[in-house]
Amino acid sequence: MAKPPKHKKKRQHYALPHAGSSPGMIYIDEKAVKPIINLYQYNAESYKVHELNDISNLKQILSDKNYTFWVEIKGFKSLTLFETLTRDFGVNKLILEDITRTYQRPKQEEYDNHVFAVSRMLQLDENQNLDNQQYSFLLTDNALFTFQEHYEDCLDPVRSRLKIGKGNIRTGGSSYLMYALMDIIIDTYFEILGAWGDELDNIEDRLFDKPDKTVMFDTQLIKRNLINIRRVAWPERDKLNDILRSDTHLIPDQTKIYIRDAYDHCIQIIDIVESLKEISASNIDMYLSIISNRMNEIMKVLTIISSIFIPLTFIAGIYGMNFAIEDPVTHKLLPKNMPELYQEHGYLYTMIVMAAIAVVQIIYFWRKGWFK
Amino acid sequence: MAKPPKHKKKRQHYALPHAGSSPGMIYIDEKAVKPIINLYQYNAESYKVHELNDISNLKQILSDKNYTFWVEIKGFKSLTLFETLTRDFGVNKLILEDITRTYQRPKQEEYDNHVFAVSRMLQLDENQNLDNQQYSFLLTDNALFTFQEHYEDCLDPVRSRLKIGKGNIRTGGSSYLMYALMDIIIDTYFEILGAWGDELDNIEDRLFDKPDKTVMFDTQLIKRNLINIRRVAWPERDKLNDILRSDTHLIPDQTKIYIRDAYDHCIQIIDIVESLKEISASNIDMYLSIISNRMNEIMKVLTIISSIFIPLTFIAGIYGMNFAIEDPVTHKLLPKNMPELYQEHGYLYTMIVMAAIAVVQIIYFWRKGWFK
Amino acid sequence: MAKPPKHKKKRQHYALPHAGSSPGMIYIDEKAVKPIINLYQYNAESYKVHELNDISNLKQILSDKNYTFWVEIKGFKSLTLFETLTRDFGVNKLILEDITRTYQRPKQEEYDNHVFAVSRMLQLDENQNLDNQQYSFLLTDNALFTFQEHYEDCLDPVRSRLKIGKGNIRTGGSSYLMYALMDIIIDTYFEILGAWGDELDNIEDRLFDKPDKTVMFDTQLIKRNLINIRRVAWPERDKLNDILRSDTHLIPDQTKIYIRDAYDHCIQIIDIVESLKEISASNIDMYLSIISNRMNEIMKVLTIISSIFIPLTFIAGIYGMNFAIEDPVTHKLLPKNMPELYQEHGYLYTMIVMAAIAVVQIIYFWRKGWFK
Amino acid sequence: MAKPPKHKKKRQHYALPHAGSSPGMIYIDEKAVKPIINLYQYNAESYKVHELNDISNLKQILSDKNYTFWVEIKGFKSLTLFETLTRDFGVNKLILEDITRTYQRPKQEEYDNHVFAVSRMLQLDENQNLDNQQYSFLLTDNALFTFQEHYEDCLDPVRSRLKIGKGNIRTGGSSYLMYALMDIIIDTYFEILGAWGDELDNIEDRLFDKPDKTVMFDTQLIKRNLINIRRVAWPERDKLNDILRSDTHLIPDQTKIYIRDAYDHCIQIIDIVESLKEISASNIDMYLSIISNRMNEIMKVLTIISSIFIPLTFIAGIYGMNFAIEDPVTHKLLPKNMPELYQEHGYLYTMIVMAAIAVVQIIYFWRKGWFK
Amino acid sequence: MAKPPKHKKKRQHYALPHAGSSPGMIYIDEKAVKPIINLYQYNAESYKVHELNDISNLKQILSDKNYTFWVEIKGFKSLTLFETLTRDFGVNKLILEDITRTYQRPKQEEYDNHVFAVSRMLQLDENQNLDNQQYSFLLTDNALFTFQEHYEDCLDPVRSRLKIGKGNIRTGGSSYLMYALMDIIIDTYFEILGAWGDELDNIEDRLFDKPDKTVMFDTQLIKRNLINIRRVAWPERDKLNDILRSDTHLIPDQTKIYIRDAYDHCIQIIDIVESLKEISASNIDMYLSIISNRMNEIMKVLTIISSIFIPLTFIAGIYGMNFAIEDPVTHKLLPKNMPELYQEHGYLYTMIVMAAIAVVQIIYFWRKGWFK
Repeated sequence: MAKPPKHKKKRQHYALPHAGSSPGMIYIDEKAVKPIINLYQYNAESYKVHELNDISNLKQILSDKNYTFWVEIKGFKSLTLFETLTRDFGVNKLILEDITRTYQRPKQEEYDNHVFAVSRMLQLDENQNLDNQQYSFLLTDNALFTFQEHYEDCLDPVRSRLKIGKGNIRTGGSSYLMYALMDIIIDTYFEILGAWGDELDNIEDRLFDKPDKTVMFDTQLIKRNLINIRRVAWPERDKLNDILRSDTHLIPDQTKIYIRDAYDHCIQIIDIVESLKEISASNIDMYLSIISNRMNEIMKVLTIISSIFIPLTFIAGIYGMNFAIEDPVTHKLLPKNMPELYQEHGYLYTMIVMAAIAVVQIIYFWRKGWFK
Repeated sequence: MAKPPKHKKKRQHYALPHAGSSPGMIYIDEKAVKPIINLYQYNAESYKVHELNDISNLKQILSDKNYTFWVEIKGFKSLTLFETLTRDFGVNKLILEDITRTYQRPKQEEYDNHVFAVSRMLQLDENQNLDNQQYSFLLTDNALFTFQEHYEDCLDPVRSRLKIGKGNIRTGGSSYLMYALMDIIIDTYFEILGAWGDELDNIEDRLFDKPDKTVMFDTQLIKRNLINIRRVAWPERDKLNDILRSDTHLIPDQTKIYIRDAYDHCIQIIDIVESLKEISASNIDMYLSIISNRMNEIMKVLTIISSIFIPLTFIAGIYGMNFAIEDPVTHKLLPKNMPELYQEHGYLYTMIVMAAIAVVQIIYFWRKGWFK
Repeated sequence: MAKPPKHKKKRQHYALPHAGSSPGMIYIDEKAVKPIINLYQYNAESYKVHELNDISNLKQILSDKNYTFWVEIKGFKSLTLFETLTRDFGVNKLILEDITRTYQRPKQEEYDNHVFAVSRMLQLDENQNLDNQQYSFLLTDNALFTFQEHYEDCLDPVRSRLKIGKGNIRTGGSSYLMYALMDIIIDTYFEILGAWGDELDNIEDRLFDKPDKTVMFDTQLIKRNLINIRRVAWPERDKLNDILRSDTHLIPDQTKIYIRDAYDHCIQIIDIVESLKEISASNIDMYLSIISNRMNEIMKVLTIISSIFIPLTFIAGIYGMNFAIEDPVTHKLLPKNMPELYQEHGYLYTMIVMAAIAVVQIIYFWRKGWFK
Repeated sequence: MAKPPKHKKKRQHYALPHAGSSPGMIYIDEKAVKPIINLYQYNAESYKVHELNDISNLKQILSDKNYTFWVEIKGFKSLTLFETLTRDFGVNKLILEDITRTYQRPKQEEYDNHVFAVSRMLQLDENQNLDNQQYSFLLTDNALFTFQEHYEDCLDPVRSRLKIGKGNIRTGGSSYLMYALMDIIIDTYFEILGAWGDELDNIEDRLFDKPDKTVMFDTQLIKRNLINIRRVAWPERDKLNDILRSDTHLIPDQTKIYIRDAYDHCIQIIDIVESLKEISASNIDMYLSIISNRMNEIMKVLTIISSIFIPLTFIAGIYGMNFAIEDPVTHKLLPKNMPELYQEHGYLYTMIVMAAIAVVQIIYFWRKGWFK
Repeated sequence: MAKPPKHKKKRQHYALPHAGSSPGMIYIDEKAVKPIINLYQYNAESYKVHELNDISNLKQILSDKNYTFWVEIKGFKSLTLFETLTRDFGVNKLILEDITRTYQRPKQEEYDNHVFAVSRMLQLDENQNLDNQQYSFLLTDNALFTFQEHYEDCLDPVRSRLKIGKGNIRTGGSSYLMYALMDIIIDTYFEILGAWGDELDNIEDRLFDKPDKTVMFDTQLIKRNLINIRRVAWPERDKLNDILRSDTHLIPDQTKIYIRDAYDHCIQIIDIVESLKEISASNIDMYLSIISNRMNEIMKVLTIISSIFIPLTFIAGIYGMNFAIEDPVTHKLLPKNMPELYQEHGYLYTMIVMAAIAVVQIIYFWRKGWFK
């Protein structure tokens, strides 16, 4: 059996904190990429995007309360960037540590003039591996800062809606934008779960058609991925619930109606994850029972063949013995040694006895239902 | 073994949201059917039904507070319909999205002048497959709008009770009608669970009579269906509880007494589902132990037959060896080569030894209880 | 193996509601029996029982507040009876439906001038099957109505205590009587669990003495019965807790002290049920491990016998070959064909080699611990 | 295999209530022993013990508020005793029933002038069986009554501390004495769990050294005992928590500090019980996988031996056939019948072929890793 | 197979209380080491460490409120030390008992002028065994006392940060120091879990490459360690939560922001532990299914070889029988005895029949998929 080579790539690496580092320290990984900073400036009528080189004069730009701003920061390789956030916007150092140490669970934290939130962006890459990226939000009254470690993401639909101005997106303010981004991140979970649901269906088909041990490997792989997605979905649900129950002025009630919708989606995610887990477990149970059944069938074949032929071979063995009818030296006759061999129909009788034994056994096994 | 062909039909397809669609967008599936709109207009004395072509002048009709109205909408293929709901009745777009995206869990949402609720209508089709249709309610003070995707449903008993005016149905107002519909939907769950309970009983009978691997397949199928029904029953229970604890004026206390009854039924559903799940698990355990037992019996037959005849065949093999008593070339006698063959009763003694070995083994196995 | 015939009788039938019946409709089963109505009229000094034909003038009798009354109704075949309850005592129709549809879970409901409660009366019949009957209570200030479907019950001890006036039973009022009946119903659960506990002990003894597959069947049977009793005990506990926390004037504090005692008993019931379930699971684990062990032992016997004798038989087979030492046609000698056969001690050497092989194998298996 | 004879002794007998007995009835078992009544009278300076014959003038003795009193009652065979408690100290009859029906779960009940509490005293007897005795407390302002069914207990350390006056025991009042007794009872749980932890370690060693089926039996035994101790520890924890949160004047805050300590111990007990249960389960898993592995090894031996020698035996069987080269009657030569037998090196070639087959198979099995 | 020798060292020993010791008694183990007392005296500007011989004049030193003090006590072999704590700082005796009886769960207790807290310091020693040491905190307004049993710990990074004055450590006061120590202890949990996560990955690789029974042993070992770490992490989380919700003046809000961060870490620990446990369980499932599969493969080889050759051997056995064609005494011909032996192509025909049987069986097994 060929080992499934894709398996080894799918390993989940925990980006773990290192003991002894000072709390609130910004962490720049050596693989960090140079930040790209996009500034979206929009309101119901206008929409403008441009790339910034740094955020040194951002505070002044954002002071124009006629617009909503989205400051999209991709890549962390710039200490200056984060220091400016602290200096110009009063962002707590613990938040910056949480942004740069990308192993946070989804959570929401409220401060006097901003809200900090974390989502986990899950994506299936070209090898169907689960890519789990942290996406951090920093919400102020008329601006949303977002932080992602790499350049790739799944947020283009939001960018186009923003560009063409469809729906409430340009009029809902910064909190609606945050909602829209969180919602699309959750919606990608549905796509991933849909793909796995299909794969579980395929596995189940294979269970019925030709179950082999890849069934077990593949189901376990999905099960493990489900464990990972559940680790994300439960705190995501808690986060959205926290937002719903929070009384910060930064998230108005008209946004909360939408957040509630995202919350419902998140509940559905959890629901589907649990169902898929039960289906995985059920597939594994099926597979194990199929293995046991197959073992039974193998053993039946062996037992039937052996039980029929071993006794017959013994009988043949008896009449293959060389007990002599005459002493080779004294030439005295030994008439009691195997007289059957010298009867006129000895061979025929023996064959009949053998056939009878075989038939009796076949009937016995038949009645035990072993031929079914 | 023939594969159970019905299995493949029973797959549960999740109608999942697609990432990137704008929130609050009405979703018209390409398989959607043209809406049939029935208007039931009734009070304690009178009862009238007619089919509407559109709902453009519905607002005016419903303004007659002497009647209770049931606006029954079957089929979603009409954007105008939904837009009229928003325009004339002030229905939130998120509600319309929830109505048309038919993968909602049972839930209840209160608004200023209407209550939105979702039930899941489960039905067994002719192949005993579980059909899971969304049934949405929109309750105003004197009217109930209901929405279903297809034309078929299980609500005829309510329609007849409405027609003949049995019980409180014509006097209870729109909220009682909503209760009556929710209640009959829950009552069909009982019928489905009753059918599966019977099938589990049949499976158990087969376990005792002639357990084969269809036992496993069929039990797993029911178990999976139970998972699906549980996914519906738990949020249904939460929904009813939310209604019970809500303080909207649209659902008066005399209706809540009945809702409480439906809530009790829903608890019983969950109760039965859990019991049936435990019985399924117990059947699977039984089946696996039966397989193991059967394997033991197969192995016992093989071991008894082999253990008895293999040694005997060996003895026969010994006396089938051709060790010579005379050198063929020098004609020197080799008297120590197999003298047993030339003894007067050699054959008899050998047979006695063989019989003794067989008897000893049979006694050994007997005492081990292998013949039982 | 004989199939356990008693099994098929023990099936639990769910008396399920039928979709489409009108809520609040009294349900008279076709197997319903004619009601027997006993009226117990008592106070600390006096005690009187007589059978009533109907309850038409009951309201007047009960107006004598010097007595406590127990109206015991056995059998439901009388619509008039229930209609009188509604007319004379203002009993809600939903209550009457709950009384006559005998699949209710234990529950308690408070109304202005009465309390409605349901208990489940469990009894082992002569075949040790679990009989599960609904027992409904309707408590007013000086009377207790009880409703049971069949004539048989387990309440005689309460009737005798009432007759001889032992304890508080005649002075505690109608709520104490309700407690006394609920308490004796719970106490029968103890008896049933005691019987099953003993049977589990017997099963465990059989596990140690001679485990066969009836162990599995019997344990599963008890497990399923435990599932049923647990389905009763949990809501019973909730019911008693509801009563304890209710503030109805119909259940005074001095009765609640006793209810608390019944509540403690109910907790113990749940406790014992959980323990017995764990013991059942543990027995099944034991049984499966015993099967596996037995399989190991069977295989060891087969392997030892086969491994020893199959190679020896091969050796015997070699020297049973007929390679000729002389060409039968040319009479040319072929001295390299099986010269061992013509050596003086060939037979002896062969036997020694065989014995050596057997001894080596026996030592090998001995050291592997296969003879233990 | 010898069956573990100690097993049968360790059965847990539930002392269950009997349906139909009147509530509040004192229950004197027929095996009850005559009560021994010890009266400890002490304060910071003095300490005195004497045995009482009855408690008839106890009320008067206890009226001396300068002392704390411990009334230790061992054995229940005296109705008078309990009646005096009711008459002189106003103890509720339900309490007396709880004291004498010794199947109570740990609990605490507050009354106006006394507190009633139950602990379960667990002890390992000389056969390592778990003895589970009820120990009841009745706390008044300056006295503690304790009730135990048998004479033996594990409380001697408290008695000595009382005698020598170590720690707070003489100055803490009656509630501190109750704490001290409860605490020592909990501390014996630690000892029992320590013993079982050691036994589980031993079992695990046997798993690695020589796993046999006693591993399963012994682990199950411990698991069952753990179930029993958990049934005691959880309500014990609830009891202590109830005491901590109660506001009775009989248990002052300085005692509650100690009770909190006992509560922490109880949490640790539960913690250890759960860990030991997980270790038991893990041992059983290990054992089952070891059995499976062993089966694999047995089957490998059988398969290797059989697969090598059965084909070889077949070849030997072929050349053991007696196809004749000459018709015995007509003496016509049949040169195509088994010419190999008459070739000069036929035997040698055959042996080479056989060896080759064996070698090929050995290599095959070697590469499959079956010799490891 | 060699037994894993490292296993036996990893046993978790519960340091359990001994029944009967007086509560509040300081416990000096016989293995206790002489205390080393380090006094760190620091503020934003200055930093000083020196070792104390005793703490007799510590009260006077700590009265200088310009500094924060860390009194680090390693080793417990000094009754005087603890008695001074009680005398000079009013520490409750129960706290001292908790410090010296090092089996406490993580907890936090508030007193009037100090806070007592316990952490568990986990470390992997050189043999990868889990070392579980108690670390106790006693927090006053300007000082932190810490207590550890042995000299080794994992706290050097905090000591260096204190020395070089990095971050808030010198300005945060005694409560920040307590946080920093608790945080580094939790961060070591991440390192340990990271190591085990890697080991589980290795085990999984072995599952795919060459699964043997060490997979089971090693996974069980990790699983048991995970049980131990979970026993620590849950109460740790509760402790931090208690601190967050406490209103003691000793822990100001600016410290609580950091405690909240540690709390988040602790949640992540629990999260990872649960995931690793699920992965362990999944590995064990995989392993068991691999064993079953392997058994199937072994049995297939046996069955194929046996089923093919046993019947063939039987046929060879038949033609190895010695039925005579001539009576050796009367020389009468017995022409019906095995005439096949004397046919011209008898041998050839027999071989053809044998080959046909073999081919048919091979095709049969092929179609069953047994060669895959």
